[in-house]
This record gives sequence, C-alpha cells and structure tokens, in this order.
Amino acid sequence: MRKVISVSASLLALACSVPAQAQFAKAEDAIKYRKAGFTVMAAHFGRLGAMAQGRAPFDAKAAADSADVLAVVSRLPFTAFVDGSDKGETRAKPEIWKDAAKFKDAADKNQAEMAKLVAAAKTGNLDNLKAAFGSAAPTCKACHDNFRKD
Amino acid sequence: MRKVISVSASLLALACSVPAQAQFAKAEDAIKYRKAGFTVMAAHFGRLGAMAQGRAPFDAKAAADSADVLAVVSRLPFTAFVDGSDKGETRAKPEIWKDAAKFKDAADKNQAEMAKLVAAAKTGNLDNLKAAFGSAAPTCKACHDNFRKD
Repeated sequence: MRKVISVSASLLALACSVPAQAQFAKAEDAIKYRKAGFTVMAAHFGRLGAMAQGRAPFDAKAAADSADVLAVVSRLPFTAFVDGSDKGETRAKPEIWKDAAKFKDAADKNQAEMAKLVAAAKTGNLDNLKAAFGSAAPTCKACHDNFRKD
Repeated sequence: MRKVISVSASLLALACSVPAQAQFAKAEDAIKYRKAGFTVMAAHFGRLGAMAQGRAPFDAKAAADSADVLAVVSRLPFTAFVDGSDKGETRAKPEIWKDAAKFKDAADKNQAEMAKLVAAAKTGNLDNLKAAFGSAAPTCKACHDNFRKD
C-alpha cells in the first residue's frame, strides 16, 4: 500500500512539478493556456497530416518548421491541467484528475509519439513522415475519446 | 515610383511568404491560431516579467524554459494575419492590412526584442533579464495600441 501511494505521489509530482500558483494566477488562465497550446499544436500537427495524407504537397522545409514548433508546443498543454481547472470553460473530463495516472499515461504516450514525429518530419523523407504521423494520430484520438467531453 | 512599388511588394512577400490557403483552410482558422499563439506568448512573457519585476522569485531554469518557448512561439502569430482575416472574432484593426509596412515594422521590432529577451533569459542573470524585459515590453504595447481594438 505504501508503494502504491508513493507511486501516485511521484506521478502527480511529474505531472504538476510546479505549483499551479507559480504558473497560473487563476484556474481560468490555465484553461485558456492549455486550449491555446492545443490549438497551435493541432494546427502544426494538421499541416504535417495534410502532407502525410497527400492533401498538401510535401514540403520538406515546411515539415521541418512545423516539427520545430511541435517539439516545443506539444508539451505545453499538459502542464496546465492544474488543480481547480476542472471547472469553467473547459471540455476536460473529471477523469483527468480522478484517474491522474491513466491520464498521465495517455499524455506520455502522446508525447513519445510527438517526439518521434518531430524527428521523422525533420528527415526530409515523406515515407518517414507518413509512418510517424500514422503512429501518432491515434494517441491524440485516445486522449480526446477518454478525457475530453464531446 | 517603380521603386516604391517594388519595396511594398517585398514587404508583402516577407509578411505573407506562404499563401494563406496553404496554412489555413479558413480565415477563422488563422484568427484562432494567432490568438492562441499570442496567448501562449503572453503567458511566458508574463512569467519572465514576474521575475523581472520581483513579483515572482528568480528561477534561472524556469526563465530559460520560458525563453525556449518564446523563441518558437513569438513568431507564430505574425504568420497568421492573412488576407480575409480582418473580419470575424478578432480585435485586429484594419490598419494591419491598410498599412502593412507600418505593421510589419512594429512586428519586426517586437521580434527583435523577443530574440534579445530570449538570449537574456538564458544567461541565468536576473539583471540581464530585467534589462531585456524592460526593453521588450514597450514593443508589445506599441502594437496593441496601434493595431488592436480595445
């Protein structure tokens, strides 16, 4: 039992390594921030997806540029699911806080796929991009399905 | 006269080097994207400002982290003032498109200050951060005053 508690505490420490107060004055600031981060993340993920799926011509420079943005931006929203930010203008489900370990696992899987996608998008090879995009997209959907209200 | 036209064309080419269609399917997507970019930019600029102004303790690691985010994010919103995105859910003034050269100048000044702030925030020296923040803040305000509706 002690071990279980200890592991949970570690997971929480990883997920929220800075006190909410230090980063966001109000819960609504955290909500606005994570939505903004997801918007930028989705825009650049979408640009890579358009190339991977043949809806836009492959442009190695544009792919590398979007990879540079994703490398930084994709981790930002996950810093902003702070305590108290479950209420307000948000579609975040209570499960994010109630089942923090499961949410962290989903977030970690997404982050790992984002890192692979960033690397692939910078190789200048469309087949690499296609493979990494195809592998990453389900980790976005998994989080949306389980942790975001319709 | 020919020279004036040529210069204007170059400025426009710099400001909008990728066709709107290639980056944003709809004008409202561009608006949402630039607002999101500004939100993330303002959050990290604000964190540096809190340290520079003594409202938060100086934390060299946190300052460097926010600098890394700013380095990437601060240039994003300025890619999204595309044609047709003057209408809709936006506080952008028509002057952004009517006086594109003046807007570009203001944006360039802000970008130059952001680059200096990023460098200063990564030195680990609070005095450097204070100086760079004090120099950068007016370039945010100048754009808000001239190009954003109240």
